[in-house]
Amino acid sequence: MVAALLSDLATEIIIPVCAVIGILFSLIQWVLVSRVKLTPDRNGPSSNNKNGFNDSLIEEEEGVNDHNVVAKCAEIQNAISEGATSFLFTEYQYVGIFMVVFAILIFLFLGSVEGFSTKTQQCTYDVHRMCKPALATALFSTVSFLLGAITSVLSGFLGMKIATYANARTTLEARKSVGKAFIIAFRSGAVMGFLLAANGLLVLYLTINLFKLYYGDDWEGLFEAITGYGLGGSSMALFGRVGGGIYTKAADVGADLVGKVERNIPEDDPRNPAVIADNVGDNVGDIAGMGSDLFGSYAESSCAALVVASISSFGINHEFTAMCYPLLVSSIGIIVCLITTLFATDFYEIKAVKDIEPSLKNQLIISTVLMTIGIAIVSFIALPSSFTIYNFGVQKVVHNWQLFLCVCVGLWAGLIIGFVTEYYTSNAYSPVQDVADSCRTGAATNVIFGLALGYKSVIIPIFAIAISIFVSFSFAAMYGIAVAALGMLSTIATGLAIDAYGPISDNAGGIAEMAGMSHRIRERTDALDAAGNTTAAIGKGFAIGSAALVSLALFGAFVSRAGIQVVDVLTPKVFIGLIVGAMLPYWFSAMTMKSVGSAALKMVEEVRRQFNTIPGLMEGLTKPDYATCVKISTDASIKEMIPPGALVMLTPLIVGTFFGVETLSGVLAGSLVSGVQVAISASNTGGAWDNAKKYIEAGASEHARTLGPKGSEPHKAAVIGDTIGDPLKDTSGPSLNILIKLMAVESLVFAPFFAAHGGLLFKL
Amino acid sequence: MVAALLSDLATEIIIPVCAVIGILFSLIQWVLVSRVKLTPDRNGPSSNNKNGFNDSLIEEEEGVNDHNVVAKCAEIQNAISEGATSFLFTEYQYVGIFMVVFAILIFLFLGSVEGFSTKTQQCTYDVHRMCKPALATALFSTVSFLLGAITSVLSGFLGMKIATYANARTTLEARKSVGKAFIIAFRSGAVMGFLLAANGLLVLYLTINLFKLYYGDDWEGLFEAITGYGLGGSSMALFGRVGGGIYTKAADVGADLVGKVERNIPEDDPRNPAVIADNVGDNVGDIAGMGSDLFGSYAESSCAALVVASISSFGINHEFTAMCYPLLVSSIGIIVCLITTLFATDFYEIKAVKDIEPSLKNQLIISTVLMTIGIAIVSFIALPSSFTIYNFGVQKVVHNWQLFLCVCVGLWAGLIIGFVTEYYTSNAYSPVQDVADSCRTGAATNVIFGLALGYKSVIIPIFAIAISIFVSFSFAAMYGIAVAALGMLSTIATGLAIDAYGPISDNAGGIAEMAGMSHRIRERTDALDAAGNTTAAIGKGFAIGSAALVSLALFGAFVSRAGIQVVDVLTPKVFIGLIVGAMLPYWFSAMTMKSVGSAALKMVEEVRRQFNTIPGLMEGLTKPDYATCVKISTDASIKEMIPPGALVMLTPLIVGTFFGVETLSGVLAGSLVSGVQVAISASNTGGAWDNAKKYIEAGASEHARTLGPKGSEPHKAAVIGDTIGDPLKDTSGPSLNILIKLMAVESLVFAPFFAAHGGLLFKL
Repeated sequence: MVAALLSDLATEIIIPVCAVIGILFSLIQWVLVSRVKLTPDRNGPSSNNKNGFNDSLIEEEEGVNDHNVVAKCAEIQNAISEGATSFLFTEYQYVGIFMVVFAILIFLFLGSVEGFSTKTQQCTYDVHRMCKPALATALFSTVSFLLGAITSVLSGFLGMKIATYANARTTLEARKSVGKAFIIAFRSGAVMGFLLAANGLLVLYLTINLFKLYYGDDWEGLFEAITGYGLGGSSMALFGRVGGGIYTKAADVGADLVGKVERNIPEDDPRNPAVIADNVGDNVGDIAGMGSDLFGSYAESSCAALVVASISSFGINHEFTAMCYPLLVSSIGIIVCLITTLFATDFYEIKAVKDIEPSLKNQLIISTVLMTIGIAIVSFIALPSSFTIYNFGVQKVVHNWQLFLCVCVGLWAGLIIGFVTEYYTSNAYSPVQDVADSCRTGAATNVIFGLALGYKSVIIPIFAIAISIFVSFSFAAMYGIAVAALGMLSTIATGLAIDAYGPISDNAGGIAEMAGMSHRIRERTDALDAAGNTTAAIGKGFAIGSAALVSLALFGAFVSRAGIQVVDVLTPKVFIGLIVGAMLPYWFSAMTMKSVGSAALKMVEEVRRQFNTIPGLMEGLTKPDYATCVKISTDASIKEMIPPGALVMLTPLIVGTFFGVETLSGVLAGSLVSGVQVAISASNTGGAWDNAKKYIEAGASEHARTLGPKGSEPHKAAVIGDTIGDPLKDTSGPSLNILIKLMAVESLVFAPFFAAHGGLLFKL
Repeated sequence: MVAALLSDLATEIIIPVCAVIGILFSLIQWVLVSRVKLTPDRNGPSSNNKNGFNDSLIEEEEGVNDHNVVAKCAEIQNAISEGATSFLFTEYQYVGIFMVVFAILIFLFLGSVEGFSTKTQQCTYDVHRMCKPALATALFSTVSFLLGAITSVLSGFLGMKIATYANARTTLEARKSVGKAFIIAFRSGAVMGFLLAANGLLVLYLTINLFKLYYGDDWEGLFEAITGYGLGGSSMALFGRVGGGIYTKAADVGADLVGKVERNIPEDDPRNPAVIADNVGDNVGDIAGMGSDLFGSYAESSCAALVVASISSFGINHEFTAMCYPLLVSSIGIIVCLITTLFATDFYEIKAVKDIEPSLKNQLIISTVLMTIGIAIVSFIALPSSFTIYNFGVQKVVHNWQLFLCVCVGLWAGLIIGFVTEYYTSNAYSPVQDVADSCRTGAATNVIFGLALGYKSVIIPIFAIAISIFVSFSFAAMYGIAVAALGMLSTIATGLAIDAYGPISDNAGGIAEMAGMSHRIRERTDALDAAGNTTAAIGKGFAIGSAALVSLALFGAFVSRAGIQVVDVLTPKVFIGLIVGAMLPYWFSAMTMKSVGSAALKMVEEVRRQFNTIPGLMEGLTKPDYATCVKISTDASIKEMIPPGALVMLTPLIVGTFFGVETLSGVLAGSLVSGVQVAISASNTGGAWDNAKKYIEAGASEHARTLGPKGSEPHKAAVIGDTIGDPLKDTSGPSLNILIKLMAVESLVFAPFFAAHGGLLFKL
């Protein structure tokens, strides 16, 4: 066995330095974005040339002299930003109460494991050593829970702020050229991506170091307490995803049903009272929700890897550098993503609409290729040539090249899932074109074909996940799964940049429409948005794939921590858990879809009411009452997020307490294997319908033109499909990621309590 | 330990006697149905009075003097019957080839276990005894496979024959009164129910006795060979369900899309070229398909129970009566169902439309209550007071009262699932009314609410199944599960009678419309059909619930036979099986739904072509070309059933051979826990849409009238939902029953091969 090349001191330096580089990089991007002025420039636009932004002006400038347009954009941006901030603040009030209550619960449950005793105790895995009392773990778990929650809230909030800061600026840049608009939108996405990745890493790193001051040599207790960080991150993500998802789709469906279908006015028309709510929704759902979701995945996979490592040879022999392997992978990920970003913003210039999508897709490929090299370096300098990993009761010998393969298989599986998702949801390929074609015979066949497409799109991602699991599990047990998940998430900064780019472009288009800009500018933002739609689908596939791996890693960590050696399907306790667990995604989806439906109905009524009672609204003479619609979406989503939230948060507590750890294991495995299918099929079905509609609208091919134009019968059928897909792809589908991860991390945190006092019903 | 009260001789007599009683009873019902003459009666209708059928004539007779109507009904019936027969014969040709090929496969795979040796060998479980060679098991398994397949084919075919015999007779009786029509339809359903239940029991009983002549004391080998019977029954069910399901929905969707939506002619209008194909579809899909599905479940649960019993104390001590406990439960079930049937046909008379649905529901309640008593009697006379059951390597002591509870829990869980299904799919309750209400805002909200309803409807059935599993598993391991499944299926004769009643009434309505009978008669058949819709949904819930239990029992038997002691989720081999298994229902559904969609598109084109090219068709001056539509449905369904069929049949073979028994266990568990959810939600979503549409059409309440009438915007939205639901509730949903059962029974049959030679990939 050869020891790691990297010294502990170097590790202590590299991690925070990479995190700080990431934060600095995101600040630079922010400064570049902020150079686009939203205050009307009294010196005229020519003075803008000074900042070097106009150097490669290749498209016709349009309306850059119009100060009114700038003022109008600023006003709309302000309304969107205010709506989003007000929603998030309302959400955080409720979430704050939840956080306090849940923090108390964590402390009480974990503290009670040893009866709130303050005595040190024999360690569980390294019996020769003494460990800190369970009460300390309870306290520190609570603290790390709060830290995770706050970091998640901050990530989501900052992302939203940046997005609402960038949307109008993208619109203004679109007056100059599509390339300039692209760069602003992409840079803004990068601000969010890097801030989130670097922030998550830095807070985690600092927390570990601070906790170490107390825990000292007791790494078992230290990293158990750290798991609270994942729980905190993920529980905030739950409310972000579910609340944001309901918000955005209630507004979207409500706006479309009355505006597009009944009143026949275009999307984002300023006369539509729900239009501001719709644009707010993009920011709170797709940006804040997605941000906290991926932050949660990142935090959880790191925690799962750390907790397994702490009871493996790294932890037992106190090899700090090897122990920090997961953090080192994330650190190198930040650097890799930084280089990758330069390919989109500096090394290569977008000159035409057709360049946008390849540029975004290249981001994924470049980051994956570079990251493979990065992982190789980290694996060979930070790990000893061989070491042992805890594998449900036994220590398994692992080589560093095996661990390298584990991370790689996750990384590349993510790319494959991303591209399969693209194949099934982009209208450049036959699956979506078939769905569009089925609109010929009406909405019913469109829905049947769309559902079938979603089901079919599950096949390859599941095989990719299964292969990743098999390889990483065989090489390094649950630690392998955790690092595979980290591998998939190692390019998170790039992934998030691309993801955030979409809603920003979408908003930019909305602002262009509302500000009354010309058709030409709207076309440019639409082109940006179309590329964003495809990458959003890729991002979702990615989020689900990583959620599956993360959840399995957490499951493994839970099983280890609860002291279970085997989860046997052939026992009634486990089997009923399995079948009930497989049912939970359906229960959860039923709740979230019904919520969107009900909230949308309320929105429809309000929009109809305004059209019917406000004189001159349809003629554009008076402004609608945007604020009421924003309030309806806010209230509905806050109210409706509670039941699904309760289902997810309470299930592990109830099952663990009353049925015990075996049944809980079954529930976790069942919800994982079932939820991932529901999530992938829901997202892809929705994405396919959306793009089938866009395919008909764009009329880019002979075939598409036979189905169109806008307003034709096939197009109407396609609009129905698109509306159905909205809650599937933006609410219930992505929320399931959280369901499967959160139940697992919650079980992990509460594992000692369940192991000690759980299974009350069977004890009677 | 007190021995069983019932002597072996009594058992040998009771089982065949009960089966023969069942067959005789069904013949009596058939004779009663056949008294309605389809040849125009030259003596006028008054002579019909002689047969006593007109004694309680309470409604106005209408058109009974019209000989033309009778002739026309006979003609239509003939066309339907010919279409159905021709489809089934075509199907059986393909299925026949499959049967021969698969029979050879079974022989080769099982024969190769011991290298085709003809030497006797030590028994696996009772090591003091010698067992017959593996080659004998291979041969007898092949024979029982063929017997099961033939019995299944026969069951489906006879059911179809009876249904097409009864449909026109029901129409003719509807001229007299709704009560008389009900009795004819119900009696015809009973013919099928009893014939199938009794036939299945008798063939199984005879096969056991014949095989015993060779096997003698080697019960282990005997009952292993018998498992082929379940596989045969189930593999025919696969083609019946999938082929029939595609047939019926291609015709239905195709007929509706052009007829109702484009041409605005009523359902079952004789001008619609697809109308005969549509009516044929009801018979081949809902009757023949459902019949072979439930026969498969029955055969499989019996086989699973028998194979586990053979390696328990019953088998080891050669207690024949106790061994035959599963058959005795089925025998008493026939008697119980016979008494139950009399409640509908003789003890109680249907006088008004409102009596129909309660009468059918009472059938379920009465049979369940009586069966509870029946099970108690069988359990206490046929079982010793205590005995041991094989439980994955150990023998577990079980008392007879525990086994009684196992059967009961299955029986009552079936009833609960049935009624929950009714609650979610009948328009008498709020869930469907909410869905209907959502049609106000268009097809999109209708679909969103319908999908959410389907997801929600999964919750209680899953808990019911989980409780049954927990109780029966805890009491008597896998034997408990198998007898719980048998308990659910013990009232199969009544269940099938009710199920078959629906499509017969549906056909009767179609014939009334096509024969140009009055609106009044159509109203009567519609009333019969409406009640049939609800019971069909109940029947589907029931079929899925029993499939889940059967599949688990078979899984347990497979695990026992493959010699696996534990199926640990925490091993990569099992986990990848679990997640891939959970994906299979999606893959399968994607195939079947797409098949329906493509076949329906072909049908739409043909129907449009005929309307456009045949002059005078819309005016009713010329007859359409029915035969071409029948042929399109036949060809499409035969062609389209092959890929999903191959997926189901090949998966266990490939996984078992290349990945071994652990991965296969994972696949079975995964597909079971995931498939049951997809199946329930698909069936109920479809049922709810269907009834939401009917709710609006019927306009029976103030609320319903605000949504209607036919042709209103909400009604159009409801029609779209109904069309989407068709493949969900009649093709992909019910076919999943077969998927989960068939993979399990196939694994069971091939278990010795997989255990001996499987897992090639990991051996390399």
